Amino acid sequence: MYIAIDIGGTKMRAALYPDKGIEPLRIKRIKTIGRNKTTLERLVTLIKQVWPERGKILALGVAVPGYLNPHTGIVYSAPNIPNWKQLPLGQILHSKFNTTIMLGNDANLAAMGEWRYGAGQGTHNLLYLTISTGIGGGVIINNNLLVGAQGLAAELGHVTILPDGPLCSCGQRGHLEALSSGNAIAKFVSDKLAKGIRSSLKNIKHISAQDVSLAAHAGDALAQEAMDRAAGYLGMALANFVHIFNPEMIILGGGVLQSGSRFLEKTRIALERYIIAKEYLEHVIITRAQLGDDSGLYGALAFAHTGAIAPLN
Amino acid sequence: MYIAIDIGGTKMRAALYPDKGIEPLRIKRIKTIGRNKTTLERLVTLIKQVWPERGKILALGVAVPGYLNPHTGIVYSAPNIPNWKQLPLGQILHSKFNTTIMLGNDANLAAMGEWRYGAGQGTHNLLYLTISTGIGGGVIINNNLLVGAQGLAAELGHVTILPDGPLCSCGQRGHLEALSSGNAIAKFVSDKLAKGIRSSLKNIKHISAQDVSLAAHAGDALAQEAMDRAAGYLGMALANFVHIFNPEMIILGGGVLQSGSRFLEKTRIALERYIIAKEYLEHVIITRAQLGDDSGLYGALAFAHTGAIAPLN
Repeated sequence: MYIAIDIGGTKMRAALYPDKGIEPLRIKRIKTIGRNKTTLERLVTLIKQVWPERGKILALGVAVPGYLNPHTGIVYSAPNIPNWKQLPLGQILHSKFNTTIMLGNDANLAAMGEWRYGAGQGTHNLLYLTISTGIGGGVIINNNLLVGAQGLAAELGHVTILPDGPLCSCGQRGHLEALSSGNAIAKFVSDKLAKGIRSSLKNIKHISAQDVSLAAHAGDALAQEAMDRAAGYLGMALANFVHIFNPEMIILGGGVLQSGSRFLEKTRIALERYIIAKEYLEHVIITRAQLGDDSGLYGALAFAHTGAIAPLN
Repeated sequence: MYIAIDIGGTKMRAALYPDKGIEPLRIKRIKTIGRNKTTLERLVTLIKQVWPERGKILALGVAVPGYLNPHTGIVYSAPNIPNWKQLPLGQILHSKFNTTIMLGNDANLAAMGEWRYGAGQGTHNLLYLTISTGIGGGVIINNNLLVGAQGLAAELGHVTILPDGPLCSCGQRGHLEALSSGNAIAKFVSDKLAKGIRSSLKNIKHISAQDVSLAAHAGDALAQEAMDRAAGYLGMALANFVHIFNPEMIILGGGVLQSGSRFLEKTRIALERYIIAKEYLEHVIITRAQLGDDSGLYGALAFAHTGAIAPLN
């Protein structure tokens, strides 16, 4: 059997799966941050709750929301879990559960989940982006997950698209995440409202990307400008990624993609506008993610199936 | 034995290598474009000149200066060889020589050459960029060459760094190649001179990047600005690539890198300025290419050694 775990900023889920198949035998959830126990203690409890009474666990796959090294099992940092800094999570879980531990970045593993069980089934080279409050990514190259020398690859939200552009969550400027994420969309509108631009959104206190999306649907000019701008920069970034990876498929997930067909259409138009040779797009399918909130859990399962990631050094 | 061929814009070289080792048994060169014969006919003649009287050729590796699909052997286009459009080069060479034909993009194969025989020996994940009149790239990921679904990956010169920036050779704007290549450096100086900026370069008719480099060494302020600007954008692009690939090593080659240590130093400073987490650079070696003009030939040999690239579809 396999155990897959998806650690989110607010909740953690663990599921027990049979040797083959993706119907969970057990599934449990728990809050990531709680009063009485540390996140690590809560995680260990959660795993024990789904652990089988008999039978062998072949591997335990974990999707972690942060920077980590899958080769060493060290979590460098996880923005939403303050105490996880230079945490040897792989080693700790191995010593407690004595099975193969496969740690991966959550967006990377979501890409793997969509590839094995979602929109990307049957492809060999795909690009996955989740456009949510932030932007995360994952890349499958010739049937392998791109992880990089220390497991830090595929940070597709943190590429400079507009030098000296808006401030990003990472402290740099003009990154894709600072231009096309949900937070970026909301901030663009807030900044324009502060300058006196008219909009139906002017009386909302803390504007969210969803507010902007709804107002855009209702015909609000500022909201439409904000959504189209985000889609335009996303398309430009996708052209870069297509020149870099030459994928067969681009899968887009996350809350911002729920905003309707206009956002995806504007993204596609920008991508076509910035591509350097038609051959790149002749066979590319651009599609929505299919697994929703389950992509991380499925990805952790798919990653656990790969059994062991060989240490590179 | 193996045969490796490097097709350049002005000359082609072919070399015969023993089963093991990199000392050529024979090496021949010929002009790429000539009066009497087509480039394809000249290439076939060149291969015959190095073909051994006895013994078996295990594979023939060819570095091609253009867009091509290594899986199908079709050359989509080669900017410096006007007649090569949708040319089934792999099939043609296979029918004439009846051995495994391995075609690769020249910059991709140069990366492979540096990895196997040059600056990158012993690494598993590296990024290679050649900064010449244009900018080409190649990426080794977990001991494999990145080629993409149709072999069009790693076009690292054609990523947008500055939206609405200078015109690129491909027709788009603000690409890395339009900001940091030799042509971009020369054009920046020419444009400034046309606006009346003072410089020791003002009496040179057709300014080259080498002219700018020499003037920068001699203390010319405009020339130094041009070189530093190119290095700054290159460093910004490298930060993007490091976030995307998390390599162990970055190898920089091409004529612009011959301009002295200041260019590399300014590139490194910009890279450090734009990186999002120190872990990315802790183990990265940034170094110059070692194989010079031979990188394509060595890369074609290394690619021939990989024997056969499996068709993906």
